[in-house]
Amino acid sequence: MAEVRVHNFSISLDGFGTGEGQALETPFGHAGERLHEWLVATRFFHAADGLPGGTVGAENGFAERHEPGIGAEIMGAGKFGPPGWQDDPDWKGWWGPNPPYHTPVFVLTHRPRPSIEMDGGTTFHFLDATPGQALAQARAAADGADVRIGGGATVVRDFLAEGLVDYMHVAVVPILLGRGVRLWDGLESLEQAYDIETVSTPSGITHLTFTARR
Amino acid sequence: MAEVRVHNFSISLDGFGTGEGQALETPFGHAGERLHEWLVATRFFHAADGLPGGTVGAENGFAERHEPGIGAEIMGAGKFGPPGWQDDPDWKGWWGPNPPYHTPVFVLTHRPRPSIEMDGGTTFHFLDATPGQALAQARAAADGADVRIGGGATVVRDFLAEGLVDYMHVAVVPILLGRGVRLWDGLESLEQAYDIETVSTPSGITHLTFTARR
Repeated sequence: MAEVRVHNFSISLDGFGTGEGQALETPFGHAGERLHEWLVATRFFHAADGLPGGTVGAENGFAERHEPGIGAEIMGAGKFGPPGWQDDPDWKGWWGPNPPYHTPVFVLTHRPRPSIEMDGGTTFHFLDATPGQALAQARAAADGADVRIGGGATVVRDFLAEGLVDYMHVAVVPILLGRGVRLWDGLESLEQAYDIETVSTPSGITHLTFTARR
Repeated sequence: MAEVRVHNFSISLDGFGTGEGQALETPFGHAGERLHEWLVATRFFHAADGLPGGTVGAENGFAERHEPGIGAEIMGAGKFGPPGWQDDPDWKGWWGPNPPYHTPVFVLTHRPRPSIEMDGGTTFHFLDATPGQALAQARAAADGADVRIGGGATVVRDFLAEGLVDYMHVAVVPILLGRGVRLWDGLESLEQAYDIETVSTPSGITHLTFTARR
């Protein structure tokens, strides 16, 4: 059966997936780019931006797994735009005319709007739905391929809490944000449902992979 | 100058140094022994209990550093005994007549009592003091040797917040406790004061060492 996957989800050592003060100029709030420097440095990320070079070690190996086999993504409203984007009828996401998804993307929001077809195969759909309902729609759209849960932290946490995630890669960055949105809240004993592998990389980041025991 | 050190301090992936429901039979609350299985398995820990065997890999290397060069320990009331121990005039700690400290130990409590001299060189002193005040007394007692901050999470956090810790080894265990006492609260940007090294071990634990930049 097709899987539900989380990739390259970065948190601080104190568990925050984003900082406080998210806005147009600061998508991750006071965290800035610090949670994603490892990802931006990879060859995978360089190539997506049409750039040469980039790291090719373990972190690139993790990063590349973001793409293959994915047929749809589900993301939260906070990933699609800064607070208040629902009031801007022209907002089409952070990513310009050709977003890096190339599949249907389901945006969870309490204020749905008509779907937006972008270049390169990405179509944004807007749903006011539970995780289970959203997943049913995303699976149908993925047509047998896997569904990625794209974040942010609240959305990943909600899908984990309902036992809907088959595979998750989390990168723990050794910084302390002190405030923001926590990934782990309310997930006591989550480890019992997963085989967990841990590996540290020379950047000081710890990569954890959670594979559901089924 | 003598250093202030934290060793073998174990937390869950979601940052809890102890669980909820601490009591005589459950010193770490609902966490049980899960945070310390790696430590109990080491040759260092076996030897302290007079037992043969134990692991001799990286985790034993970390564990052994608990002892050398330490001249005093500071611990919180919650490490010295279960909630309410202050009402029991006969309580002398969890560790029996010969506690594994063999130095002066300063117990932070709002209800001090007379010092208790134990076998093997351990003397418990009881202080109602700030971290800085307690450290001054412990440094004097340590007579030029290092001072260990023994925990629990609240005490380690308080000493970190005041910039008093020179070295810290934290073991992140891949379990989610969901509730308890957090180590990291209120320590935004702590990483800027430390060089941090990260290593994962085959048990799935991540060991972080913090070395103060001075």
